[in-house]
Amino acid sequence: MASFAFEILHEDAAARVATFTTPHGAVETPAFMPVGTQGTVKGVDAGRLRETGAQIVLANTYHLTLRPGEQTVAALGGLHAFMGWDGPILTDSGGFQVFSLAERMTIDEQGVRFRSHIDGAAVELTPERAVAIQEQLGSDVAMVLDHVVALPNERDVVADAMRRSLRWAERCRAAATRPDQSLFAIVQGGLDPELRAESAAGLVAMDFAGYAIGGLSVGETPAEMIAGVEMTVPMLPHDKPRYLMGVGRPVDLLEAIARGVDLFDCVMPTRNGRNALAFTDAGPVRLRNQQYALDGEPLEAECPCRACRHSRGYLRHLFQAGEMLGPMLVSIHNLTYYGRLLAAARQAIAEDRLGAFLSERRRGWEMATV
Amino acid sequence: MASFAFEILHEDAAARVATFTTPHGAVETPAFMPVGTQGTVKGVDAGRLRETGAQIVLANTYHLTLRPGEQTVAALGGLHAFMGWDGPILTDSGGFQVFSLAERMTIDEQGVRFRSHIDGAAVELTPERAVAIQEQLGSDVAMVLDHVVALPNERDVVADAMRRSLRWAERCRAAATRPDQSLFAIVQGGLDPELRAESAAGLVAMDFAGYAIGGLSVGETPAEMIAGVEMTVPMLPHDKPRYLMGVGRPVDLLEAIARGVDLFDCVMPTRNGRNALAFTDAGPVRLRNQQYALDGEPLEAECPCRACRHSRGYLRHLFQAGEMLGPMLVSIHNLTYYGRLLAAARQAIAEDRLGAFLSERRRGWEMATV
Repeated sequence: MASFAFEILHEDAAARVATFTTPHGAVETPAFMPVGTQGTVKGVDAGRLRETGAQIVLANTYHLTLRPGEQTVAALGGLHAFMGWDGPILTDSGGFQVFSLAERMTIDEQGVRFRSHIDGAAVELTPERAVAIQEQLGSDVAMVLDHVVALPNERDVVADAMRRSLRWAERCRAAATRPDQSLFAIVQGGLDPELRAESAAGLVAMDFAGYAIGGLSVGETPAEMIAGVEMTVPMLPHDKPRYLMGVGRPVDLLEAIARGVDLFDCVMPTRNGRNALAFTDAGPVRLRNQQYALDGEPLEAECPCRACRHSRGYLRHLFQAGEMLGPMLVSIHNLTYYGRLLAAARQAIAEDRLGAFLSERRRGWEMATV
Repeated sequence: MASFAFEILHEDAAARVATFTTPHGAVETPAFMPVGTQGTVKGVDAGRLRETGAQIVLANTYHLTLRPGEQTVAALGGLHAFMGWDGPILTDSGGFQVFSLAERMTIDEQGVRFRSHIDGAAVELTPERAVAIQEQLGSDVAMVLDHVVALPNERDVVADAMRRSLRWAERCRAAATRPDQSLFAIVQGGLDPELRAESAAGLVAMDFAGYAIGGLSVGETPAEMIAGVEMTVPMLPHDKPRYLMGVGRPVDLLEAIARGVDLFDCVMPTRNGRNALAFTDAGPVRLRNQQYALDGEPLEAECPCRACRHSRGYLRHLFQAGEMLGPMLVSIHNLTYYGRLLAAARQAIAEDRLGAFLSERRRGWEMATV
């Protein structure tokens, strides 16, 4: 594992700036990972993705094993060559789909059985299989298979899923063989501090390369989500990367960074971009709104992205006319927005002023919701 | 009109290499114009479009007047600023939609009345209105409004439409006011040499900046289309650009270039690209075909385009998975293919070997259809 390292460069209260080194290059953290579910960030080619400031991308084990299959990806040179992305890649384990596709799934101690959402074929995902698939895909960072449940939920349900996730994490660790792939654990336990502590202690004892905070952004309020982060971070090793899965809005990212989180992924920038919602420092801009029809200004005057070479009026026209270029450009803008936001957060941490930076950004975002 | 010029650099039999200068830069001809119907070449941003080798793009008066409206485009700085394309732009007049949307249209001497395909609103397009819209859009080259009819057709129908097109061309010329926009005429007359000659003579007497060959690719065979080109070119001035509208396949372009055509437009590279058909020197590649699932080679090893940084297997996966990036990348490849084909044709003309070049390319394309 000599090609992996996590070096903390500076700390500002709980927040930190660090360098996470992988076999495909280094990531300056805190960092946001664009989501490339099926081996592509929707509507953004690899060159344009790099231009947004993305340093590392996420791809989905569940989707890729169903189509085109990990053997196909491996035969085509592995995920980096397949996607044309030579930077770091993290793959999730399919655990989130246990939650999001719950009605297609049965679960027991051995693993999960799905019906493929594509052709109805039976698919089994065990901890060993989740690791084997990710090893074939060849990502830099693999995630353990976990059991995610919706919130709120009964304590017994949350506890059972957390303890199963612990046993599965151990099986994943035992199954992992690639020295050029590091394996991250996932803390579960809902919003219960005791269950979170039991999960974290069990995982930390197994000594993983990094730790994710899972089981959040699954139905709880934003305040509960941040409370879950705040209780969990202190249970994790100081010198390992911390990854908050599936989060979130710009304000959520800054709140979590302030509490010591290093890595994020979320579909919001691209999914919202495809639906004509653009993120800005003055809050979201809904480009289908008639008020932008004759607006000659870009989304953000200071944004260097390709969408901001055009007027809001043009972007609105593209959505009204059903042109692909609308989703393409606003996805690029939103990813650039997230990339710039996290770069600014890193700078603020380096200068010991993350708190002031968060307050300032919050004021801009909240003005827009008035 | 000092900012317009057409300078022939070299001739190889009927074919010629020339420089067509416009207020937004020069075009080396023969040139292919990608089609940006609604103010965007579908799935290709302006930077990527430039990378394909495109020198000039086409946009559609009919579509842009319906949505967002020429006043909106003008208020947003004109078509160049709107699209973010600082090179030359040619706009068609809406005449082709008289043909393609015939069931929504009534025509008389005054002009054409449509029902909008978007909201059913009544729209009138007269020669004067077609010029006024194009002047508001601010393209470098505007086209006269013409009356296109399907082929085969009765001689009287073709003759009536051709003579109406002559009268409309005169009205367009009288209506044009922008010194920074040049106006091209359109020769009609179906496949009848006498009618074509009458049309060409009438238009040439009016002295336009360029001449299009219209009314082809509307139902006739490829051989008839090329015969139509062959009969028409000698009726046109030697020292003005000649534009074959709506054509076509790679072989059609080379056949027409050999007969003296300078400019082309067609939706084939982008429409086929969106449908997973890629052009290559060895003929079309249908990427949905199972045979490409494990194909690690690019579409063309020597192609510099962004799609050719990926394997055919990856491109196939994108189409199978319904990802936008498939249409995006194969549109880029096909436009690059057309751009490279025309650059090679210019080189062949400059070296007096266009005939040999056409034969060689035809052999490659025909092998694939076996």
